[in-house]
Amino acid sequence: MKTSEIPQNTNAVQTDYLWMAEAIKLARKGHYTTSPNPAVGCVIIDSNGNKCGTGFHLRAGTPHAEVHALQEAGASAKGATAYVTLEPCSHFGRTPPCAEALIKAGVKRVVVAMTDPNPRVSGRGIEKLQAAGIEVTSGILAAEAATLNRGFIKRMVTGKPFVTVKVAASIDGKIALANGVSQWITGPEARQDVQRHRAASCAVLTGSGTAKADNPSLLVRPGQAALDHYPLAEIRQPLRIVVDSNLSLPPDLRLFHDGFPTIVATCIHDSARLSDLVLPRKNRHIDVNALMQALGERQLNEVWVEAGPGLSGALFQAGEVDELIVYQAPKLLGSEGKSMLALPAFTSLDETFQMQLLDSRQLGNDIKMTYRVR
Amino acid sequence: MKTSEIPQNTNAVQTDYLWMAEAIKLARKGHYTTSPNPAVGCVIIDSNGNKCGTGFHLRAGTPHAEVHALQEAGASAKGATAYVTLEPCSHFGRTPPCAEALIKAGVKRVVVAMTDPNPRVSGRGIEKLQAAGIEVTSGILAAEAATLNRGFIKRMVTGKPFVTVKVAASIDGKIALANGVSQWITGPEARQDVQRHRAASCAVLTGSGTAKADNPSLLVRPGQAALDHYPLAEIRQPLRIVVDSNLSLPPDLRLFHDGFPTIVATCIHDSARLSDLVLPRKNRHIDVNALMQALGERQLNEVWVEAGPGLSGALFQAGEVDELIVYQAPKLLGSEGKSMLALPAFTSLDETFQMQLLDSRQLGNDIKMTYRVR
Repeated sequence: MKTSEIPQNTNAVQTDYLWMAEAIKLARKGHYTTSPNPAVGCVIIDSNGNKCGTGFHLRAGTPHAEVHALQEAGASAKGATAYVTLEPCSHFGRTPPCAEALIKAGVKRVVVAMTDPNPRVSGRGIEKLQAAGIEVTSGILAAEAATLNRGFIKRMVTGKPFVTVKVAASIDGKIALANGVSQWITGPEARQDVQRHRAASCAVLTGSGTAKADNPSLLVRPGQAALDHYPLAEIRQPLRIVVDSNLSLPPDLRLFHDGFPTIVATCIHDSARLSDLVLPRKNRHIDVNALMQALGERQLNEVWVEAGPGLSGALFQAGEVDELIVYQAPKLLGSEGKSMLALPAFTSLDETFQMQLLDSRQLGNDIKMTYRVR
Repeated sequence: MKTSEIPQNTNAVQTDYLWMAEAIKLARKGHYTTSPNPAVGCVIIDSNGNKCGTGFHLRAGTPHAEVHALQEAGASAKGATAYVTLEPCSHFGRTPPCAEALIKAGVKRVVVAMTDPNPRVSGRGIEKLQAAGIEVTSGILAAEAATLNRGFIKRMVTGKPFVTVKVAASIDGKIALANGVSQWITGPEARQDVQRHRAASCAVLTGSGTAKADNPSLLVRPGQAALDHYPLAEIRQPLRIVVDSNLSLPPDLRLFHDGFPTIVATCIHDSARLSDLVLPRKNRHIDVNALMQALGERQLNEVWVEAGPGLSGALFQAGEVDELIVYQAPKLLGSEGKSMLALPAFTSLDETFQMQLLDSRQLGNDIKMTYRVR
């Protein structure tokens, strides 16, 4: 483990990219657990070019990636280079600042993928390292590192979570027949993939229509999720948020009785319901911009939306959607079927929503398409 | 060129598959031109295992694949093995029977991918070869060979052409806004791909609504088609078929004036319009089952449908669609938009159309999905 895996004839710049790639791979191990903190990975390379320490952040309140890696490196950290996917913190949070730990360990050089998006600390960790005489290189695999923490970054920059709307639809864009029949539109592979997205999200958002019609749990079913070598005991269930503008939901729904938390977002203030998220009304329903602001304030980085066409369409119209994931089943449900998103009658193509296709892959008999909203 | 490209340690069965794969590759060179004949390729391997002749069929009325290959092989054909993608013909058509040519040349063994689907001749070519003492092996890469000629095979077996419906739609399954605006839903790569499908089809079918609204040419624009090293001068324009049940189309449409043939399929008999295809009426429009029967009788193997939701939907409902190709643009046109296919309000999922996803690929910013109708 202490030997370098970098080929002999690799130059210094290439070396930086290769070790940072390894640090990013480590950071991904926190994908399902670190929030509200970012996922971070760290690799320490000693003065002979050998890897002597690795670490990643697992969950809030436990040590940061740098601390794990420094502990493993021990005395070898002196004169070493540390690769970190995010600028080391400079402030006392739930744990002491990592910049100081790197300084104390005698690290000679620190390579960071990106600066901290948190405006309170951005650049300060690097300044602290430089003030201690440590050479700092920044911007190595910055885009890849930013992708890891897109939710954390969006929340730090805008105060709102990164929102992904999920739709399971037919080739002709329908989620149900005209009479509402909709069970099993997509296959088991697509449904398993949904479990992984739920597990990686801080919250799952749904609407009262879906809650009433399907009585879903919206929890991660660990056996079905198959989370890539992930310790199943560590699974963190997402917070459920159900939009119920007029408090019309029956109290006997699964969401309210399975022992996991569910927050009701509503326009009705009821002093007997302390845990409700009471929000202003807009166009007959809750103001979804205010909803996202409130979810950001609750430190939710990524929100996964499994809702009907009404709520999902309202999020699109309010400009609150960052990503659309469509599981498209090889079926035609007919032009009279229920549309995947309730959107108004646009009058010119300029008014329509334009996306960027990020990924398209086959899952069983279905296709999963991932679109970034422009 | 006379040396074998087959590795030394390949066994006899593997050798058969490898040479047949080459014959199939040759057959594909006729993809855009052979109809109403099938695409056929032939490779001749001499008694030393060296390739001594290759050939493919280019267009009806010109020599068959075997004739080209035998000509190239010359005296080397004596004692050779011939690989042919389709059973050699045994009857005099526009050219003399290939089975006899193989016998005369002294070929020792013939390997065929599949028997002739034409019930008039199926198996007879093989019988003739065997009667002459030639060893025949059949069924090598049969499925691949059948894919080459799916239109020819369907017509021989059912009397009707292989029908592909093409749709360019948004993620939400719409082909236009509620007000009809629809130009440039998909990008240039998708539109170029459409050209290749037109070029490979015997006919392009459209409806009166599309013909009036878009005044399309439906011809192949050679520069745009970029037909994989194909001699552009050889491009065969597809026959245009326009469904105009009530003869409502204005005579000044591009389809009627560009010098290439267009057939009008209609329910109205007009003795002044000799070239019309007059068909019975069914549900207010022409009977599309009768239309496909008539197109099969005209020896059209593959029909490419670029029509509106009405005609395309009617073809689905009549069970006349073999394949659906969707070019899906990364846009949301809204739930009030125009649906890709007009289909009735199904009341159970069993009534809906189930497809098999054959292929999914990115074309520029769009996704092309190919579905086989079950």
